[in-house]
Amino acid sequence: MDKVGIGLVGCGTVGSGLVRNLPEANRLLQQRLGVGLEIRAVAVRNPAKKRENLPVQPVADWRSVVSNPSVQIVVELLGGTTESLEVAKAAVAAGKPLVTANKALLAERGAELIPLAQKARVPIYFEASVAGGIPVLKALREGLVANQLLGLHGIINGTCNYILSRMAEEGSDFSSALQQAKELGYAEADDRLDVDGIDAAHKAAILCLLAYGFLPPFPKVPVEGIRNLSAQDVSFARQLGYAIKLLAVVRPVGPERVEVRVSPTLIPARHPMASVHGVFNAVGLVGNLSGPVQFTGRGAGPDATSSALLADLGEAARHLQDKSPGPVLPSGGEKIRLIEPGDSVGRFYVRFEVRDQPGVLAQIAGIFGAEKIGISSVLQPEGHGADSVPLVFLLEAARESALQKAIAAVQKLALNRAPARVLRVEDLA
Amino acid sequence: MDKVGIGLVGCGTVGSGLVRNLPEANRLLQQRLGVGLEIRAVAVRNPAKKRENLPVQPVADWRSVVSNPSVQIVVELLGGTTESLEVAKAAVAAGKPLVTANKALLAERGAELIPLAQKARVPIYFEASVAGGIPVLKALREGLVANQLLGLHGIINGTCNYILSRMAEEGSDFSSALQQAKELGYAEADDRLDVDGIDAAHKAAILCLLAYGFLPPFPKVPVEGIRNLSAQDVSFARQLGYAIKLLAVVRPVGPERVEVRVSPTLIPARHPMASVHGVFNAVGLVGNLSGPVQFTGRGAGPDATSSALLADLGEAARHLQDKSPGPVLPSGGEKIRLIEPGDSVGRFYVRFEVRDQPGVLAQIAGIFGAEKIGISSVLQPEGHGADSVPLVFLLEAARESALQKAIAAVQKLALNRAPARVLRVEDLA
Repeated sequence: MDKVGIGLVGCGTVGSGLVRNLPEANRLLQQRLGVGLEIRAVAVRNPAKKRENLPVQPVADWRSVVSNPSVQIVVELLGGTTESLEVAKAAVAAGKPLVTANKALLAERGAELIPLAQKARVPIYFEASVAGGIPVLKALREGLVANQLLGLHGIINGTCNYILSRMAEEGSDFSSALQQAKELGYAEADDRLDVDGIDAAHKAAILCLLAYGFLPPFPKVPVEGIRNLSAQDVSFARQLGYAIKLLAVVRPVGPERVEVRVSPTLIPARHPMASVHGVFNAVGLVGNLSGPVQFTGRGAGPDATSSALLADLGEAARHLQDKSPGPVLPSGGEKIRLIEPGDSVGRFYVRFEVRDQPGVLAQIAGIFGAEKIGISSVLQPEGHGADSVPLVFLLEAARESALQKAIAAVQKLALNRAPARVLRVEDLA
Repeated sequence: MDKVGIGLVGCGTVGSGLVRNLPEANRLLQQRLGVGLEIRAVAVRNPAKKRENLPVQPVADWRSVVSNPSVQIVVELLGGTTESLEVAKAAVAAGKPLVTANKALLAERGAELIPLAQKARVPIYFEASVAGGIPVLKALREGLVANQLLGLHGIINGTCNYILSRMAEEGSDFSSALQQAKELGYAEADDRLDVDGIDAAHKAAILCLLAYGFLPPFPKVPVEGIRNLSAQDVSFARQLGYAIKLLAVVRPVGPERVEVRVSPTLIPARHPMASVHGVFNAVGLVGNLSGPVQFTGRGAGPDATSSALLADLGEAARHLQDKSPGPVLPSGGEKIRLIEPGDSVGRFYVRFEVRDQPGVLAQIAGIFGAEKIGISSVLQPEGHGADSVPLVFLLEAARESALQKAIAAVQKLALNRAPARVLRVEDLA
């Protein structure tokens, strides 16, 4: 059987991993799927830079890779959303299947790219874009294809999960845990995409696309990272029986409305998601038939990402060989919208900093009561005469707009010492 | 688009679930895959019995279902290994893809069936045969296709896991936990397939087939169920920091040798597998690229099984529509053999019942030492003057044959009061 020709655009850490892992994987793909892959062209920003294992001389011009007649599948590994979109469009225009690990491209430019690919009937494969070593998109797209999805949640940024694990296990504060993550290579020098939740939100948007055929408008997805999380809140959460994780939530809310968000979230310490530690990722979902399913594994790193890229390449190659059309890009969510900010209903953790004086608790509890927000537990450490003491509430389900009103009212009180800290609580299935 | 015709052979609990779930699933399959399914013939043992929702009049003769020209895919849901094999062979002979939930058929008769299907190039789909609601075969077959599998382990019998969970949580003994499982419908009246580990071994054999292209000769797979597990051992395990699960293990051992077994096994209480409770299933594996991956979900029940059957039906229908060949049945393991009994190397938990007298510990420790088996911990509850007391050892890795020799030597000692209880220990990745 002839090998299928691959063109690689971008060859950084992920691309080099793919090149390194290809020979052994090729043996397995040949045996298991009856296909073989061959890298036939590579474009990189600096072709003069020395690279190991590359089977061809790289070039600077990616257009020549996409248009190379011996290239049948284009692998885009540039990252970013500008040049990568041009590459993707060129592949689609050339009728060549695209394989990518680029979550930003799909989440931020998918609305432009996906209709083009659908119209041209060119498949796009992007298993590597979410939770690298865990084949969760394949599970949504095929394994659970007969299910209505009642909701998804995920720990889908390994950097944040590493930092939160350090904070929980050692009581360290955010900045020293971030420093450790950087020293170990788990966090980039520019930590914003990871730590501020953008990367997790990209992946949440892609999970939403797979689950509901609806790609949410990215700027409207509420995102909160972990930069402002204090060791104090991690400790209070633990005392209440919860762990704090950067959780992505995708959930249908009534007809044609979906809630998508990323935020540091309290989850029950006994839930399996809470024992996902370090750089590991996990995605949980509930199907109407399957019931709750959880996938756990490595979300990043060149090998885990290679696992996903090579599976996509094997599938793409098999479809080319069979002359079958390949997977359909998700659709059907044309009428779906994100819920309005404030309409989100959920449980919250709120920490106030208040003057240590009699009657404080009653006053604040009264304000929650006026907004019809139930209190499920309260934590009030002894003040030891300090001027300001924390007062922590774990609340029953409430509309976010009602919660904000209550919090604004508390913050107007003379006894209030500092802005309230609000965190989401998810009890999970 | 024309619908794809389904013929159902067998319509018990699982078949009725499929029939009930088909209409809603059809809407999703149409939207997501562009295929529609239609049940066009049904064979049951007693066609006179009243059944709900069946779109066609059932017949007794399954041959007429398989040969019905409007039936394009045969769904075998009879169970067992005799008539089901005939059905499967007839489907293959008719060139019609087979979808089945029948793990016994594949594990015990796969050696006969699979070569026929390979020769006829007829695909067999069996996602529903292992861990119902968890698409783990799809993950092995496609999502992780580029990985060498360094090992798999699983909790793949919900009945046993329910019983073990009750025993662990409530300290109940096996027979009362089994009784509870029967009352809740989690265990069949004939409990042997589940409780004695046969069902889990069927699934382990299928996981081995997927992972290594090698279907182990079923009678040679070592299987131990949970019927003889005592509450005492569950409690000692917990004191040592372990939980006991009925664990299936599939693991390559040197070149062309695989170890496959099912046994009650101590796993670290802190490992995510240990928090798989009740009827839930979990499969963990380590890929050379993906690293450790764990899948958790419902393993049985008509809805979870429907989820898998419908995904397989959707995939089979899509291949028929595309005229593409469908998945290749696993192969390539022709040279692989099971390891010899006794060659297994692993850690063990051993409980002796001994006379409560000075020097016992030294004597037994000496016997382990003579076999070069290290002791990693010992538990010796106070005897309170009883004639016989338990003495528990957690051992370092040892060859099973050496362990058996040591145990035989201890059992010859005058101080030994009862046969030793031996359990496997797996520290897991």
